[in-house]
Order: sequence, then structure tokens, then C-alpha cells
Amino acid sequence: MFKNIATIIKRNYACNHNNNILNILKSGQVGTEIVVQGWVKSMRNQKENVFIDINDGSTDKKLQIFIPQKITPYGVNTGSSIRVMGVLKHSPKGQLELNAENIDLIGECVLSKGYPFMPRKQYTLEYIRQYLQFRPRTNKFSSMLRVRSAANLAIHNFFCNEGFLNVQSPILTSNDCEGAGEVFKVIPESKEIIKSMIKEGLSLDEGFFNTKAFLSVSGQLHLEAACHGLGSVYTFGPTFRAENSRSRLHLSEFYMLEAEKAFIENIDGIMKIIESLLKSITQNILDTNQADIEVSSESPQSDFHWLDKKFNVLTYDEAVKILENNKNKYKEPFDTNDGFAKEHEIFLVSHLGNIPTFVINWPKNMKPFYMREFSDNTEKVSALDLLVPNVGELVGGSLRENSYEKLKEKIPEGTNLDWYLDLRKFGGVPTGGFGMGFERYIQFITGITNIKDVIPFPRWPHNCSL
Amino acid sequence: MFKNIATIIKRNYACNHNNNILNILKSGQVGTEIVVQGWVKSMRNQKENVFIDINDGSTDKKLQIFIPQKITPYGVNTGSSIRVMGVLKHSPKGQLELNAENIDLIGECVLSKGYPFMPRKQYTLEYIRQYLQFRPRTNKFSSMLRVRSAANLAIHNFFCNEGFLNVQSPILTSNDCEGAGEVFKVIPESKEIIKSMIKEGLSLDEGFFNTKAFLSVSGQLHLEAACHGLGSVYTFGPTFRAENSRSRLHLSEFYMLEAEKAFIENIDGIMKIIESLLKSITQNILDTNQADIEVSSESPQSDFHWLDKKFNVLTYDEAVKILENNKNKYKEPFDTNDGFAKEHEIFLVSHLGNIPTFVINWPKNMKPFYMREFSDNTEKVSALDLLVPNVGELVGGSLRENSYEKLKEKIPEGTNLDWYLDLRKFGGVPTGGFGMGFERYIQFITGITNIKDVIPFPRWPHNCSL
Repeated sequence: MFKNIATIIKRNYACNHNNNILNILKSGQVGTEIVVQGWVKSMRNQKENVFIDINDGSTDKKLQIFIPQKITPYGVNTGSSIRVMGVLKHSPKGQLELNAENIDLIGECVLSKGYPFMPRKQYTLEYIRQYLQFRPRTNKFSSMLRVRSAANLAIHNFFCNEGFLNVQSPILTSNDCEGAGEVFKVIPESKEIIKSMIKEGLSLDEGFFNTKAFLSVSGQLHLEAACHGLGSVYTFGPTFRAENSRSRLHLSEFYMLEAEKAFIENIDGIMKIIESLLKSITQNILDTNQADIEVSSESPQSDFHWLDKKFNVLTYDEAVKILENNKNKYKEPFDTNDGFAKEHEIFLVSHLGNIPTFVINWPKNMKPFYMREFSDNTEKVSALDLLVPNVGELVGGSLRENSYEKLKEKIPEGTNLDWYLDLRKFGGVPTGGFGMGFERYIQFITGITNIKDVIPFPRWPHNCSL
Repeated sequence: MFKNIATIIKRNYACNHNNNILNILKSGQVGTEIVVQGWVKSMRNQKENVFIDINDGSTDKKLQIFIPQKITPYGVNTGSSIRVMGVLKHSPKGQLELNAENIDLIGECVLSKGYPFMPRKQYTLEYIRQYLQFRPRTNKFSSMLRVRSAANLAIHNFFCNEGFLNVQSPILTSNDCEGAGEVFKVIPESKEIIKSMIKEGLSLDEGFFNTKAFLSVSGQLHLEAACHGLGSVYTFGPTFRAENSRSRLHLSEFYMLEAEKAFIENIDGIMKIIESLLKSITQNILDTNQADIEVSSESPQSDFHWLDKKFNVLTYDEAVKILENNKNKYKEPFDTNDGFAKEHEIFLVSHLGNIPTFVINWPKNMKPFYMREFSDNTEKVSALDLLVPNVGELVGGSLRENSYEKLKEKIPEGTNLDWYLDLRKFGGVPTGGFGMGFERYIQFITGITNIKDVIPFPRWPHNCSL
């Protein structure tokens, strides 16, 4: 038995993570003397003793500390950080608890100095969102962050297993074709730097890079360049939209997972990857972080009955027919010129058993220029949307136009995309791919309704705190 | 035996990645009929037959195709894409080769139409860099991209195993304190959007977010907020510098790996994580992609003798003494006011056996405000740099000032970092962390000298192609 706290702490540092609460609760070594550190989540006084629930972020679970009141330092309260030495025991109810022999206050947390969370009070997500610096300490949000972290890992491992290479597409780009004006431009803050660099005839916006530079709205076009050589590639990183949207599904900065595959001749191949991706990563998260999903979720809880069902596939025309036959079941009138509103998407999925649903074979005029036309019907393109419960559209994808001549005709005027055409001109191959909004995926599996609550530091119109 | 190519292709799609060249060469199923697709890397004519080396990006290896000239379509040449059906056999030399029964030209590659690479010619990295859209098709660069992808995966798995959570720090931030003016600012391209949103009294730059917004130069401060609640966290994403630097070690957009750990009381704990990280991920990459490292490397080849050595640790004062005692061994004079130049860093590492070397205990005035002062010497801070062969400084880290009062004194004026102070004011804990330039890491292990050649789409002053 180590009685010297310094010795134990030193030993602890050698493999610190083994001593986090997740591992302590897993290993369950009753009778072992340990040191544990974390934040006080709640306290209950009971005659001469105190029960303290402590959490260190490694799990949603708390470790209960049992300690005599007389050795509990002044200042230990909800929100403060402590270090505790003691012996693991089973409580009368059979749960692991720590019989503390020593407790140190590391950092106080005094409400009257302005801490915005009172003990034992529930706060709305809107309230918590005002204090982004403290949000990772709250139960719901830290559970969401663990789900997000597990999803990140599952995504990288999924693509590795499927033979895809990670190729980080650029954030700064001189292409703005896709954004149609709703992009952010990027210039040095320092006018001196621009002036010292600018070449004759260029505007200030072009001074640093010799061209205007924008924040990427999608890595797809660059990913296609990598795909023509590496075969199967994906990128997973931030993308940006300068839209004045207040929707619960939109942010100015959000994460996109995009994948592209060479030698793919039909849309089934893309649907197969997407279905396999969603089932695999969701099952992975459930295996490791099911409790976090439950804690982070808003009621009603998300259900996962779709995990062992085949995803639905219907054509755009079939989807329109369902909407037209069910006009009384949604509010916003459906107009084929406007495409599906979120309400229509959610209705379609629920009409089909709340199983994720691919809608394929879209009218050409509703999709971007690079999607591949049918050979026997030039009014339709080989595109897909995947609709899911809670959020509606989660994934969009297509085969890409791989004919140099057709693509050249369809490329919007004024864009500088000769390099993109080059991919087809020299050693071109049929490719296809898709993009998934990562935050929407987290909303889908947790049921959290506002996208601002599924990203660590949300940025949206009129808001860029911290 | 399947004789119908369409049937085989269909079967192939069901589990396409199993049929890439990496898996074909691994499984080595002689006598099996397969379909393979890829790009022609080289061709040799031999009387009535043709040998074609084909690659599909899944490996650095080529699969040799053996085919009668009379059934080889016109247009199959270096750079073009083909689909081949045939039977795997051992060549007379014992290597696997494909006896082709059928070959289809998928995409031609006609030099006279402007393809910039001639068959059998070697090009410099500078030349290749002019054609970013084709770069992933070249041998060296595709090997580098596979190394980079393997490193990405190894990093995420390392941190998961060590109990760290991935928390994506924001790219857009209203803090510019660290960049000291050398930051990019971000505004919507559309003046209409700004005008429709701007509130009274704000500048155009503040119109969209109600504040100026910049591209992040580091995720550390935000990571510290997540660390106070989650314990052990990391972020791995793009960061930006608006510096007019033409160095072979600097880009305007580059990837940083940053980690932060709570309850850490001394710099040894941070060094331990860094050493373990570098050894673990490098060993992982060598296990899966050693050939890619060799192909991508410039001569002389990187050596990995440091993998089973303990990293060196010396203090800043000791490092200065070594430099002062060896003035004749480097060109640029060393001045304690300027800190180490790259040449000094490289000299120090080579002087110490080309083993990665930590330099610790730095003068306070050479490091940022948030690093923790020694309790017994307020002129020094608990900071570290890790110097490595090829690149010099690879990692920087420190304990963070966790005293609210001291930090408040040291925070630069005019910054809006009350939220950062709040982390110490309420439930503060000792933390420490580090940041590693990902491209420099790739340079370190491959020996590639120019940082522009270790990122898919490099951005630097006067350059933002594609």
C-alpha cells in the first residue's frame, strides 16, 4: 500500500490514462488504493460524512467518493476540481465507491464570482450555449463530445478497412464556382503585408495569393484529382458557407465527410458504401458509447431499428408521387420546382418506416453541373440523396460526368476549372462519390435538434464567440 | 471460370476494394481469373507481346500485364487508364503477372494534347508541383500521400488508445492574440449579404459575425476549454499564417496536431506522451507503408535508428553552452536574443547522435504568455521544443499557467480573453500540452526537403492554385 500521495501520483503519471474514471470503473479492483482527480458534479451531506460525485471526462459515469466531513477542505463544492486518495470499495448498494483518506482542493468554483451554473439545477441547451468555455463540463455536452470523438475514429477506421486513403482537401481555394457567391473570402489582416506583396494590376483581395482566395465549400473537386491516381479517397474536415441562415440545420463552419471512388459505373456502388459506412460507424459508437448517446439525447430517444434493415431506395419520380398522394400529411405545399423541403424529407422517411431512404435519379436541373447524365435520358442524372429520421437530407452523392466533351459543355461560364477538365482529358476514369454533413450525422443518432449543440464551438450569423 | 467480363465486374463491385492491386499481390491467387483497373505506368513491346505495368493507387507496386500485341487497343499508353481481364500467373522470374485475355481502354492520354509528363522521364518535384491536378498520379507523390494517410490513421488510433478525445477546435475565431497581426481575416465575398446583416456602428469586416473573424493559428486555447471537463483532448486540423515566408518549412495553410492534458504537474509527463506518440505512429507507418517511405524519400534515405533510443533531454542553458562551444560548426552566428535558427537546431540534433532532442526550461521572454513559470525562478518557464533531424523544431509544448492571478497579469493588453481566464477562475486544474506541425513530421520521416511536396494542395505566398 502506498501511503505517500506524491509517490502514488508519480506512479500515476507513468500511465495516467489507466487511472481515469473509465478505467477505474472497468477494472473494478476493490481494495486497491488509488488517486483520482476530477470535477465535483454533486455533493450530499449526511451527518458526519459527505458523498461527492466526481467526473473526469473519460466517461459519462461518476465515481462516488465517501469521505468524513471533518477532512473535507473548505471550498470543495459543485464545479470545483479535487484530487482524492482512497480505497475502492463496494457501496451497500453494490456500486464501486472510493473511501477517501485524503482530499485536496485543486481549483475552487465560487458561484458568487460569476459561475453560471447552480448545483442541482437543469439548464436549457440555449442557456448553456451562452457559455461555450464551460460547455464541455456539462453532462449532456460532454457526452455529445465523446460521441463525436468516437464517430471521428470510427470514420477513419471504416475508410481504412475499405481501402480508402485520407487526402486532406484544401481549405483555401481559388475556386468559388460551387458557392455561387455564398462564400467567405480570405485576406491578410495586415495591410502592410498586402502592400509589401501586391503585384501590379491586382486588387487588395488578390495581393497575398495573386488571386482571390476563398474558404472551401466542398473538397469534392480536389478529391477527384486525388481519386484519379489513388483510386479510393476521402477527406474529413471543415467547410464554410457565408449564408445568412438561422436554420437549426445550418452553421457557417461545419464538418463534411467526402469520399470519391474511381472505376465505379453505377449508383448502386455508391449506395453500398454509404449504407455500409452508416451502419458500421453507428454500430461502433453504440458498442463503445451507448450511454453517452442516451445522456446527450433529447427525448424522444433515437432508435436504431434501422441498423439491421436494408435502406429504402426510390426514384425521385416515385418520391414525388408519394408526396402528391399524401398532401394532407404535411403543411408546406410541395412544388416540383422547389425540390423537397425538410418537412417533405422527414415525411418521406417516416412514410417508409423511418428507415434511411435513398432518393435516386434526379432531374438534371436540380443538381450541380458535374453529375453524370443517364445515357438514355439526358433530363436525369445519376444522383442520390439519403434521407434519414430527425434531419432529412444527410448525404448527397452522384456519379460524376466523366466525358470530357459533355463536362466542358456543362461547366458554368467564368469558372477557372480547366484543371478539373484535365482529369477527364488525360487518363480519365468513371468516378462517383458523396458528401455527408458530420454534424447532421450526430444530430441523426443523438436526436439533438439544434446543430449548434453538436459542434464544440459553433459559428453562425452574428456569432463567433471565443 | 467467368468468361463474361460484365458478370465479373458486377461481382467485383460487391467488394471492390478486395480487387485492388494491393490485395491481388497480397493474396497471390495464381490461376484465378480477375479484372483489374488502373493507370498505365510503363509499357515494353517485345516481338508479338506487350508488357504493361499498371497501378491503381492502392500500393506503390505495379502489376505487370502480359498481353498479345494484336489484342491491345490503339491508344493504350503511359498515363492512359485501362481495364484488364486475365489470369494471375507467376512470371519466369517468379513474380505475379496477369496474362491478359481482354483489355479495354477507359481513358486515353495523348501527349500532344498537352499532358506534361513524357514516358520514362524523371521530373523534379518543382516541375511536378506546377501540375497539382496530376501530382497524385506520380510515383513519388502518391507514395507520400499513402504515408500521410497512414500517419493520419495512426495518430487518431494512438490518441484513442491513450484515452484522449478528439475535439475539433474552430477554424474561425474572434481571437487574434497569438498571431500578432499575421493572421488572415474572413469576410463574406458578397457585399449584399454583409449589408443585409450589418448592425449599426460596426465595420464591414464585422458585419457577418458582429466581430472580426480570423483563421485560427492554433487550436490550443479552445482545446484548453475542452480539457477542463474532458481531461485529455486533441485536435488535428488546418491552421493558417499570413506570413510572407518563402522558407522550405512554411506554408500559409498547414496541419497541426495539438493535444492538451489535465492534471499534469510536470514537463516529463508531456515529454513522455510526445516520445510515445512519435515512436508509435512512426512504427505503425513502417509496418504498413515502409516501401512508400522509400519511394517518396529523397536521398539520403531517412534512418530510423532513433526508434529504439531514448530521446535526449537538455535544458535551454545546456543547449546554449553546446552552441557556444562549437561556433565553428555552423554558419549563422548564434545570438541568445534571437533564439535558435534552423541551422542551430539541426546542429544540436546531429551533435547528439541524430536522436530527437527535447530542449526544456526556456527563458520566459522567448515564449508565449500562457506558459507556466517555475515556482522558484520566474525568469524560466516549463516549456519544451523537440528538435529532430531534417527539420529542426518539430514539436512545441509547455505546462500552462494555471494561476488565475498570474495569468491575468501576463495576458497581453487588448485581447478579449476573459473566457480563457474563466477556465482558471472556476474549477481550474494544472494542464499541459503540445503542438506538432504535421507536414514537418512527414518531412522528418521521408526526408522530403520542401514542405510544399508533403501536402496535397499547398498554399503559400503568391500561390493558391486550384
